[in-house]
Amino acid sequence: MTETEKFDIAIEGGTVLTMSAKMEIIEDAAIGIRGSLIALVDGNRRIPAHKTIDATGHLVLPGLINTHTHLPMVCFRGLADDLPLMDWLNGHIFPMEARFVNKEMVYESAILAMAEMILSGTTTFCDGYFFENRIAEAAKACGVRAVVSQGFADFATPDNPRFDKMMSAGIRFVERWQTSAPMITPAFFCHSPYTCSPQTLVKVKAAAREAGILYLTHLLENKDETDTIVKRYGRKPVRHLLDLGVLDHQTIAVHCNWLNPEDIAVFADLGVSVSHNPVSSMKLAAGVAPVPQMLEKAIRVGLGTDGSASNNALDMFREMDASAKLHKVMSLDPTVMNAPSVLKMATSGGARLLGMENLIGSIEAGKLADIIIMDMNQPHLTPLYNPYSHLVYAARGADVKTSIINGKIVMENRRLLTIDLENAMNNVNRIATHISREHPSTMR
Amino acid sequence: MTETEKFDIAIEGGTVLTMSAKMEIIEDAAIGIRGSLIALVDGNRRIPAHKTIDATGHLVLPGLINTHTHLPMVCFRGLADDLPLMDWLNGHIFPMEARFVNKEMVYESAILAMAEMILSGTTTFCDGYFFENRIAEAAKACGVRAVVSQGFADFATPDNPRFDKMMSAGIRFVERWQTSAPMITPAFFCHSPYTCSPQTLVKVKAAAREAGILYLTHLLENKDETDTIVKRYGRKPVRHLLDLGVLDHQTIAVHCNWLNPEDIAVFADLGVSVSHNPVSSMKLAAGVAPVPQMLEKAIRVGLGTDGSASNNALDMFREMDASAKLHKVMSLDPTVMNAPSVLKMATSGGARLLGMENLIGSIEAGKLADIIIMDMNQPHLTPLYNPYSHLVYAARGADVKTSIINGKIVMENRRLLTIDLENAMNNVNRIATHISREHPSTMR
Repeated sequence: MTETEKFDIAIEGGTVLTMSAKMEIIEDAAIGIRGSLIALVDGNRRIPAHKTIDATGHLVLPGLINTHTHLPMVCFRGLADDLPLMDWLNGHIFPMEARFVNKEMVYESAILAMAEMILSGTTTFCDGYFFENRIAEAAKACGVRAVVSQGFADFATPDNPRFDKMMSAGIRFVERWQTSAPMITPAFFCHSPYTCSPQTLVKVKAAAREAGILYLTHLLENKDETDTIVKRYGRKPVRHLLDLGVLDHQTIAVHCNWLNPEDIAVFADLGVSVSHNPVSSMKLAAGVAPVPQMLEKAIRVGLGTDGSASNNALDMFREMDASAKLHKVMSLDPTVMNAPSVLKMATSGGARLLGMENLIGSIEAGKLADIIIMDMNQPHLTPLYNPYSHLVYAARGADVKTSIINGKIVMENRRLLTIDLENAMNNVNRIATHISREHPSTMR
Repeated sequence: MTETEKFDIAIEGGTVLTMSAKMEIIEDAAIGIRGSLIALVDGNRRIPAHKTIDATGHLVLPGLINTHTHLPMVCFRGLADDLPLMDWLNGHIFPMEARFVNKEMVYESAILAMAEMILSGTTTFCDGYFFENRIAEAAKACGVRAVVSQGFADFATPDNPRFDKMMSAGIRFVERWQTSAPMITPAFFCHSPYTCSPQTLVKVKAAAREAGILYLTHLLENKDETDTIVKRYGRKPVRHLLDLGVLDHQTIAVHCNWLNPEDIAVFADLGVSVSHNPVSSMKLAAGVAPVPQMLEKAIRVGLGTDGSASNNALDMFREMDASAKLHKVMSLDPTVMNAPSVLKMATSGGARLLGMENLIGSIEAGKLADIIIMDMNQPHLTPLYNPYSHLVYAARGADVKTSIINGKIVMENRRLLTIDLENAMNNVNRIATHISREHPSTMR
């Protein structure tokens, strides 16, 4: 055996939940990583490697995929809670965003958010915010896989006071990130049908199609969105988007709490996918997405945390737990959203949503090495009969011990290797001190 | 200043959420503990003590109170999930209980459960199971405050094959624990109106009144309980219990997911209190208790985890989070169950439920020293604007750093001082190996 046959990293001895189509579980597994790729997955053997991680007594699974967030909102985490939605938005979030969102704030907040995400098992996220270039730069610096969506709306945004500049800046943004960083995928995000005119929705979708990128929009988060759109355009939101021609398999609708059976049929027909954010929608009292019904129609559904101003965490284990339990109690049926199906949503399902199912979302030879290792030798995870059950109902982000993204170890034994955590917290705390000075309800 | 003036323990420099009636928050606080009692709570000073805990940058709050659990069910954690209730109970839990519940299993499981509870901030729990003597002994060994409820039902139980023995054993149980251990409070638990005859319900309540102890029962956990009771007794469950005369201020009804406005009026009138277990009821798809309506009528409501076969954790931070968010989304009103009110339910509210409001549930001079200290210097808790918000929406059990019960440090810097954790996990794993041999669906 020569030196060249060695793998860069071997993960040995763990129980691997592959999350492949066949949902294989491999005990006493060996995973061999070369460069950014999983080169080998096998059972009951040892393999030579430059670096070997002993995963005995651990679960090994694909990194979690957070399909919707607004990372810089960590700066507003817990600033204003338990408020009526419009008071929260117009009285707190929007004024604070107008005042404090800038390039530095976006970058520093994104770094801290990525620390939180890595520490809780996320290896890929899909973000939508302002100054999205800075999110992409932060993701690149931290070694986290990202879909970065430049936002569009028919009002002045902190990064683009004039709409005509948004489009050209968006196109430059896509050109920059489509070629310069393999772990960064650019996309476009139209905020919503009620903040974007039909012209904007259509124009941005045309540009997204031209560039071959994803197109996202918030949709039917709240009950009254239907009334708003009907009043303005004489048709319900999904019909509105359908008539505008912006719904297709490259469109991700975020939230969809008030999707009706007719809407579900449209989505199934056109291959539109959905990002489900149960924790945020619960906290904002926005509604409950009909996820079991969507999955029944084979709609692609992924999980997301939303921003941490409305969650207030970026921990995908919380989303899995909430998603399973919320839909059980809403339907009064404990069999819906079983644990394996929920873990699928957070891994291979999220990958399908982002069009990356051939690259990530499962542990199989040839896929990119995005892998998390969980320490199951803990009181709240003892005994262990069924790994899916424990991951969804008993584990928490803090149980993730080691995380690998694109073949690089980004966290080892809970120590972050690509982020200076102390520095990241200090930077956000400094910004927060300014925010709290101008926000009367804080205790700082 | 002489040596005799020293406190046993001082907690200095933290921000104290007292959870007193006035909800004072004391910054840079000093808490002095003497024996089992909080002797002093003050701001901006240093105090002499034999042991000083530096709580700078930490939140200090009363220990959490878990008002309903079945600790030994940790042995069945994740054994069978995502099943219809009757299949889960009759096909899995009941047969496994009949086969495996014995004195040793109850004791060893309770020790592991207490490790999990201490590690996630619980300092007092209220349990109901079989062999409750063993739970009391385990609580005494671990230094955890406990209400231990001996169970009654009209069928053979693992600890009492004959009903006539249950009553005399129950009375001996109460006599033993009313005098021998100040941190242990005995109580009686009638399993439910559908497993206990009217005679049993009445007889056990009479004995509870005689002994001056709490009387608990599961009530209206599932929707079909009303039909069952109406069919059998010609009246709805709450009316049934009312007519039997077992409802009073010493009665705790557990779950109450299907309590109607009439029932709420009865509870308010008689001072009956309610243990709310949102996570378990979500996972079992049992229903959603009308907690905002109960609180409006000043009914005492506490939070509980239920057993870990139906949760699957014993982490009160999960209950707080779920409770706030579940009721918001059910009512489509984000203002219900705000963060301070939820933290109240888990502390002072739980204490009122257990009739211990003069002893525990808040940090005030003269109360028993049940205190937890939380490390807030963490990425998912940064920045910190509002401590209530963070505790309910962002923190998790793993953020509890140090825990004091009855003036004794039981966990320091996440190291358990009264439990040999490795041993506790090994003991439960050994029992679980036997269980999984007889349970076909496990992967062990």
